[in-house]
Amino acid sequence: MNKRTVFPAFLHGGDYNPDQWLNYPEILKKDVELMKEAHVNCVSLGIFAWAKLEPSEGNYQLDWMAEIIDRLYENGIYTILATPSGAKPMWMSEKYPEIRRVSGATGHRELSGNRHNHCYTSPVYREKVRQINTVLAERFSRHPGVILWHLSNEYGGECHCELCQQAFRDWLREKYGTIEALNHAWWADFWSHTYSDFSQITSPMVGGEHSIHGLTLDWKRFVTHQTVDFMRAEIDAVRAVNPDLPVTTNMMGWYDGLNYYKFGPYVDIVSWDNYPRWHTANNVDIAADAAAAHDIMRSVKRAPWLLMESTPSMTNWQPTSTLKRPGMHMTSSLQAVAHGSDSVQYFQWRKGRGSFEKFHGAVVDHYGGSDTRVFRDVAAVGSRLEEMKPLLETEVRPQVAVVYDVENRWALEDSAGPRRAGIGYTDDVHAWHRAFWEQGIPVDMIDMECDDLSRYKVIAAPMLYMYRAGFEKKLREFVENGGILVGTYNTGIVNDTDLCYLGGWPGETMDLFGLWNEEIDSLPEGATNAMVCRGEGHRRYTVRDLCAIVHAKGAEVLAEYDDDFYKGTPALTVNRYGQGKAYYVAARAEADFLRDFCTKLADDAGVVRALNTALPYGVVPMMRTDETGKAVVFVQNFTGETKPLMLNETCTVFETGEKTDALTLAPYETVILLK
Amino acid sequence: MNKRTVFPAFLHGGDYNPDQWLNYPEILKKDVELMKEAHVNCVSLGIFAWAKLEPSEGNYQLDWMAEIIDRLYENGIYTILATPSGAKPMWMSEKYPEIRRVSGATGHRELSGNRHNHCYTSPVYREKVRQINTVLAERFSRHPGVILWHLSNEYGGECHCELCQQAFRDWLREKYGTIEALNHAWWADFWSHTYSDFSQITSPMVGGEHSIHGLTLDWKRFVTHQTVDFMRAEIDAVRAVNPDLPVTTNMMGWYDGLNYYKFGPYVDIVSWDNYPRWHTANNVDIAADAAAAHDIMRSVKRAPWLLMESTPSMTNWQPTSTLKRPGMHMTSSLQAVAHGSDSVQYFQWRKGRGSFEKFHGAVVDHYGGSDTRVFRDVAAVGSRLEEMKPLLETEVRPQVAVVYDVENRWALEDSAGPRRAGIGYTDDVHAWHRAFWEQGIPVDMIDMECDDLSRYKVIAAPMLYMYRAGFEKKLREFVENGGILVGTYNTGIVNDTDLCYLGGWPGETMDLFGLWNEEIDSLPEGATNAMVCRGEGHRRYTVRDLCAIVHAKGAEVLAEYDDDFYKGTPALTVNRYGQGKAYYVAARAEADFLRDFCTKLADDAGVVRALNTALPYGVVPMMRTDETGKAVVFVQNFTGETKPLMLNETCTVFETGEKTDALTLAPYETVILLK
Amino acid sequence: MNKRTVFPAFLHGGDYNPDQWLNYPEILKKDVELMKEAHVNCVSLGIFAWAKLEPSEGNYQLDWMAEIIDRLYENGIYTILATPSGAKPMWMSEKYPEIRRVSGATGHRELSGNRHNHCYTSPVYREKVRQINTVLAERFSRHPGVILWHLSNEYGGECHCELCQQAFRDWLREKYGTIEALNHAWWADFWSHTYSDFSQITSPMVGGEHSIHGLTLDWKRFVTHQTVDFMRAEIDAVRAVNPDLPVTTNMMGWYDGLNYYKFGPYVDIVSWDNYPRWHTANNVDIAADAAAAHDIMRSVKRAPWLLMESTPSMTNWQPTSTLKRPGMHMTSSLQAVAHGSDSVQYFQWRKGRGSFEKFHGAVVDHYGGSDTRVFRDVAAVGSRLEEMKPLLETEVRPQVAVVYDVENRWALEDSAGPRRAGIGYTDDVHAWHRAFWEQGIPVDMIDMECDDLSRYKVIAAPMLYMYRAGFEKKLREFVENGGILVGTYNTGIVNDTDLCYLGGWPGETMDLFGLWNEEIDSLPEGATNAMVCRGEGHRRYTVRDLCAIVHAKGAEVLAEYDDDFYKGTPALTVNRYGQGKAYYVAARAEADFLRDFCTKLADDAGVVRALNTALPYGVVPMMRTDETGKAVVFVQNFTGETKPLMLNETCTVFETGEKTDALTLAPYETVILLK
Repeated sequence: MNKRTVFPAFLHGGDYNPDQWLNYPEILKKDVELMKEAHVNCVSLGIFAWAKLEPSEGNYQLDWMAEIIDRLYENGIYTILATPSGAKPMWMSEKYPEIRRVSGATGHRELSGNRHNHCYTSPVYREKVRQINTVLAERFSRHPGVILWHLSNEYGGECHCELCQQAFRDWLREKYGTIEALNHAWWADFWSHTYSDFSQITSPMVGGEHSIHGLTLDWKRFVTHQTVDFMRAEIDAVRAVNPDLPVTTNMMGWYDGLNYYKFGPYVDIVSWDNYPRWHTANNVDIAADAAAAHDIMRSVKRAPWLLMESTPSMTNWQPTSTLKRPGMHMTSSLQAVAHGSDSVQYFQWRKGRGSFEKFHGAVVDHYGGSDTRVFRDVAAVGSRLEEMKPLLETEVRPQVAVVYDVENRWALEDSAGPRRAGIGYTDDVHAWHRAFWEQGIPVDMIDMECDDLSRYKVIAAPMLYMYRAGFEKKLREFVENGGILVGTYNTGIVNDTDLCYLGGWPGETMDLFGLWNEEIDSLPEGATNAMVCRGEGHRRYTVRDLCAIVHAKGAEVLAEYDDDFYKGTPALTVNRYGQGKAYYVAARAEADFLRDFCTKLADDAGVVRALNTALPYGVVPMMRTDETGKAVVFVQNFTGETKPLMLNETCTVFETGEKTDALTLAPYETVILLK
Repeated sequence: MNKRTVFPAFLHGGDYNPDQWLNYPEILKKDVELMKEAHVNCVSLGIFAWAKLEPSEGNYQLDWMAEIIDRLYENGIYTILATPSGAKPMWMSEKYPEIRRVSGATGHRELSGNRHNHCYTSPVYREKVRQINTVLAERFSRHPGVILWHLSNEYGGECHCELCQQAFRDWLREKYGTIEALNHAWWADFWSHTYSDFSQITSPMVGGEHSIHGLTLDWKRFVTHQTVDFMRAEIDAVRAVNPDLPVTTNMMGWYDGLNYYKFGPYVDIVSWDNYPRWHTANNVDIAADAAAAHDIMRSVKRAPWLLMESTPSMTNWQPTSTLKRPGMHMTSSLQAVAHGSDSVQYFQWRKGRGSFEKFHGAVVDHYGGSDTRVFRDVAAVGSRLEEMKPLLETEVRPQVAVVYDVENRWALEDSAGPRRAGIGYTDDVHAWHRAFWEQGIPVDMIDMECDDLSRYKVIAAPMLYMYRAGFEKKLREFVENGGILVGTYNTGIVNDTDLCYLGGWPGETMDLFGLWNEEIDSLPEGATNAMVCRGEGHRRYTVRDLCAIVHAKGAEVLAEYDDDFYKGTPALTVNRYGQGKAYYVAARAEADFLRDFCTKLADDAGVVRALNTALPYGVVPMMRTDETGKAVVFVQNFTGETKPLMLNETCTVFETGEKTDALTLAPYETVILLK
Repeated sequence: MNKRTVFPAFLHGGDYNPDQWLNYPEILKKDVELMKEAHVNCVSLGIFAWAKLEPSEGNYQLDWMAEIIDRLYENGIYTILATPSGAKPMWMSEKYPEIRRVSGATGHRELSGNRHNHCYTSPVYREKVRQINTVLAERFSRHPGVILWHLSNEYGGECHCELCQQAFRDWLREKYGTIEALNHAWWADFWSHTYSDFSQITSPMVGGEHSIHGLTLDWKRFVTHQTVDFMRAEIDAVRAVNPDLPVTTNMMGWYDGLNYYKFGPYVDIVSWDNYPRWHTANNVDIAADAAAAHDIMRSVKRAPWLLMESTPSMTNWQPTSTLKRPGMHMTSSLQAVAHGSDSVQYFQWRKGRGSFEKFHGAVVDHYGGSDTRVFRDVAAVGSRLEEMKPLLETEVRPQVAVVYDVENRWALEDSAGPRRAGIGYTDDVHAWHRAFWEQGIPVDMIDMECDDLSRYKVIAAPMLYMYRAGFEKKLREFVENGGILVGTYNTGIVNDTDLCYLGGWPGETMDLFGLWNEEIDSLPEGATNAMVCRGEGHRRYTVRDLCAIVHAKGAEVLAEYDDDFYKGTPALTVNRYGQGKAYYVAARAEADFLRDFCTKLADDAGVVRALNTALPYGVVPMMRTDETGKAVVFVQNFTGETKPLMLNETCTVFETGEKTDALTLAPYETVILLK
């Protein structure tokens, strides 16, 4: 899909739930007026409207929706149309209990109610979803105002019903062929867990088996597989009516229940829901976290994406519903754009009068007027996005990748040892990402199924515990061809069913890194060691948590441990391999190390930064480039202080056309520069 | 009920469980001797005796109880007779499983055993209770020694069985009439939760719906309704035999499972069980907490009440069974009297030999003698209460009310936003109560169904999030007629089914307070802002947690925020309305503010204090007055230090008749003064 | 059983699981080579091999095991043969659901899978175990390489199925005779819990009764009874084939699910699995804890025992898999020997490729070679044990006992009061043990069923809350005959069904201690009092948590409280009784008190220490003696620092024969001395 043909502008708007207000016609009328005042050009419609669209079985009521879509379109507002599968109607879950999930925590089928809790295997539910999707597609998918399908809502969770158990067993039989192969792959003979038949296998649930890592891992893979399969059935239904309307589904960043990378091939564009807790901790840390999440989501397809939900104000379900300070709404919205989003959408347009999210920030408050701080902030974003229309031609094109592999995460977080107190995988991924981000370097967050590594100059792969999908071979090729690779402790330990490699760590990449990792020391909470660099200055960095004890087998030792019985042994090495280099960071090092090390890596590799200048703390430039390589730079101040910035070059301020070689950024200000 | 006709003295005694000692006749005999030595004049009998009263179905064995009641009466000791419904016999719960609760946490019916866990809907249980109550009433309710019914014990908890579900649905149908009305009231269209039939509704329980605030709120209301209904059935049974014997049931202060205010109309006198954790934290804080609980309980009927349970020593089920220090038993007992109790009763008379509460403090220890510190402390209280008999004519008559509304509490604590980390409602109620209490000002704790506000000079209503029962109208009338009202942040947000008001906060009282509250900022844990008073001195107070951002619309601004983007906007306002004033405290302020502000309020309104003098820290005077307004003042030292006190007037020490204008209070001492 | 005839050497080896590697013949071959290189002379075989031994019902496959046993024996390696009941095969738990446990936490039958989770009552499972045990015994129990049965694995946990409920009721009927006797023993009339029939009784499980301490206590006793009964059925099966092969089962030290002392009469030798968390806290504290656990385990039979499992490196399932520092493997291994073990065995020989314990330390790593630090450390232990063979004649013969009674622990930890925040029983036991241990004094950890107290000079009995098995009479006799007894607060409170003694604490031993304990004050968390000694110096010690308030009735007061309302009352007393003395320590005192006090006790009683010299911090000598009293002393440095030690006598270094009167101990070094 070529996104530029689809969206004629940066989309600005959000979830719109008129189905809650059908008895309030004056409000529905007022909504359109206010949308125009807020520079809204797009809404997501019908996400939780099934009960209104099909109030009883087969009784489809679509006229109210038709009226809404028409009225919006007449007023220049596009519709992203949802399939309503995220919340099944009460009558349906009462009539067909099989569509309700069986909880893994209790082993019991859920009662009617809640949302995001249908069985994704149930043939009945799939059929009901197919029918409503078909009906919606037939009525609306060729409407000129309808520009995208919003499939369901935040797919997630697990079902442990007998239908799912059977599907899981079938999936395993398909994968392993024989029960003997499965027993070996899962090392099931341990604790005499040998299966003699596939029928003996049950998902990891209450009262069941949780000690077989291979089982747990395959169950998580199955959950993703089955969810994707459900989504594909949804897609099939709407494509059967109109194959041209693109589809998306809204994802959740770091959410670990699904491997989003598996969704990439089936959606036309990625979208996601972003709820940072601005102002409740250091905003620079929060910005770094949001940046990493944006980069994960973009990397699912390595293409432009949509910010599908964000809050115009506070988020009600967080511990404190802290308000966005002046400037933050603009800057947090543009951060998404800087990382590749072609939209700024909100949950939601208007606060509902009741139930769970009635206090979630929305463009229109219960108060009802446009004379509120929040409304004005939203309108300002809408207005600025309109001006930014020329920038739709640009996208994010990183030269650096950090490996974030969800299956590796599952395996690591379930691993019994070396650090059950918390293995820290996402912290590591985050820390490596941040070390580049805070230099103004765009980063892709790739997983092990990523095929095209050649576009990168540097790849950092923290804790690549599990090798799968031939990634170790791809890395070897990447380095051979001149790439710079960084690996760490706890790498190359198991294969894709969590079976340990025999013969030494890091498995088949011992020669690539030029070392043998004999042991991993897991330091008690709070304990530290240090690494000391061999070169000039003997810079010393604190390390903690995990310290690999390695023997250099060809690698050059760049730093040594400074304490304990492995003092003097290698803590940082580099191995020249082919045209490239493979670094090995043996211990979890403090942020200062990552900052210094990644700066050096980027310099050595000639990675392009958004700005070539010294950056004050909390000021981060991020860039989108067009096909010619011309860059637009979003300079963002994530702090509450005014920050001066020397540019070391002359840039043009996008909105004013003014030339400048220095900026003074107000608190939470974003300046857009053309280079 | 006129309590003066019922109780000829301050009651002193406690729970008596001879049913555990029927095989120990020498102990039963010794009990009466020791009771007299301890100045005990009243016991509560038979609370958990059902298994002994009806050891098998229909086989009533009441002779042992008759013998006990007679013996007590012959020795001048009254009996409060319990209905035994608090603990069903084993044979019954085995024969009739339906009487056992279904747990909301597991969804399963409980096994036999435990207590306070009958189904309050079960017709079988109601019939069994009716029968035993009838039998007890017939045998004992006209006995001259029996002065009061003790209905069941500490009603509480929930049952989720199918009988209760059906009763809940019937209650909803009765309340809403149509499913459409219910859907609107609960805003059920949100997340497509629209019900198409009442039969689809289930209580909030495991595997079920927890996201519909209206459902959760109505369920809690139903639990109170059904519990009251069960209690009323108990009352009907005993009244059918003897309509003249008054009834009480023992409540639990701040317990949030029931709305005790709904019990008021049906019991003749309120009683409750009070277990402060003396000496495990600052005793002044603990005293303040106990004072508030006493005032809540008294306010259920706004009449004299009974302290039904307290510990003569330590409380076994608390984290540490810390002993009461010398003096504390007297002072904690008299604190109840100072707040309106006409009794000091204990759990329990004699420590049982085994099971869960065998180490709970009791008048008589396993040791068995009266030569113990605890026994002597108890006897001293009994002796003093005897001397205090003339004070029975007095009661507590407050001019200040703090609003504590249990349904508002339910709604606030379930509210998703603005502060899920803890909305702090009871802390607020407590803090406002304390600001008056520590000045020696009696306070009623009224709920929104309170009809007669005209008796108060000042009403403080912290976080009146929900308006119900027309309370906003009563407040308006109260202010019109010259009352002083204090409201705060997070007020006037929703109606009685938790639907938000449209048109601005605080709902229909925007003109009463003379302002519009546009936003509420929820500060992260530990963060603060401040309010600065406009007048002389510019006194500055720290605020935290919740800061309402308001626009004055007629109100006078008394203080402003001192920080953040809403610096300079109103933090404290007052609006003259009719003959009175409506204050609005926009942020959660530190205790110093409440102290200063409430002192000013009381002075301005001419509220009478127990003593007109400067009070040393931890010394609190509380007063009861007779019908002529003549006051008896209980001056209590809640600290472990000796405290001097100048009276600024000449008072008479009640017990000695001595005139004095100064006191020196020993640690934990209570002095009773006549003014 | 005379252990010297059984084991011709200190056993060295560990769990061997070739059943996981049957498809890797080269590895099986390599194993034997590596075992010899590691000085391994014994493995534990077949612990979780049932699925390989009986892959389908009745289809026994023992040849692979025969081959392994033969090969090992040919290479000088003995086999400890397991019965495989610890993990039931999948086919069995699918075919016979009754063999799966019903969980007390959920009330539901478990799914197939996991381990250590068979129903110990199920007749089907007992029959299946009998069959496999018989088959194994017939094939292997007379093999010259097989020297011991390893019964099941780490018996533990509970089953709440109907079969177990019925067995529990039968056990209760047998114990109490009548339901009336049970009601009295459990004080069931409290809360009207009176049972009218045994059939009404259910185990303490979800939805059931947890408030009857007598029920909970008897349930725990029943669980031990039924587990022992299951084990005895296993023993019967193997003894029926060969009555001469001794049996053990591997226990878990402080594990509180079973009363291991009840296993003593049925096993021929005690063995256990020891996993201290070396280096994750102060190693001296960890060493003290391990020492106490070793002493508990030895005291189950008061005879030499086997270290059945330990880690050669780190432990994967702990919060951090921290590596043993150089020296620690030797010293932790020899600590077991110093406390009476005749073996050093590991879990496990070779790391499995997958599943839950693949990262548990093992002699052979996934790497596969012997050129690892861990392998070398293991081989060094094996080599040293070979040299130590003459020391097999010695064993540990303590003159001091600390009472550790598991039933007392159950009662105390379930007790509602005086300190639900944590009663601290095992901390107390540990602290008293440590006060002797750190002086180099061997200690037995006896329970109340111990018959022969006359062998001890000093008995410390912290918190003997429950008197059972006539222990109070045995203590009286012990003191009468000249023994020194130490009792503490919270002693002599209840009988063996948790019924409180009437007449005063400490029950029937008031005269033995010469005092009456009127109250126990439970201090809030963090609060302290102090005891001040009356004699010279007025030494002052901090006390906390629990302070008994006592009246001396003949006892001499040695120290007084220094604070609070019981200041000046006795805090430490001694009562001369017969030829001995009974001390009473009224409050939980700091470690300094225990150290000073126990030093004095040992001096007064003439208790022999391993070394008569001042010991530097962290250096602990422990001794084994032969029948003539000749001692071998293991001097162990549990710190990471070098420690000098003056011996005050001339000793012979065991391995070198060198005479010396001073040592310099390297970090974590152990020196073996002959005196």
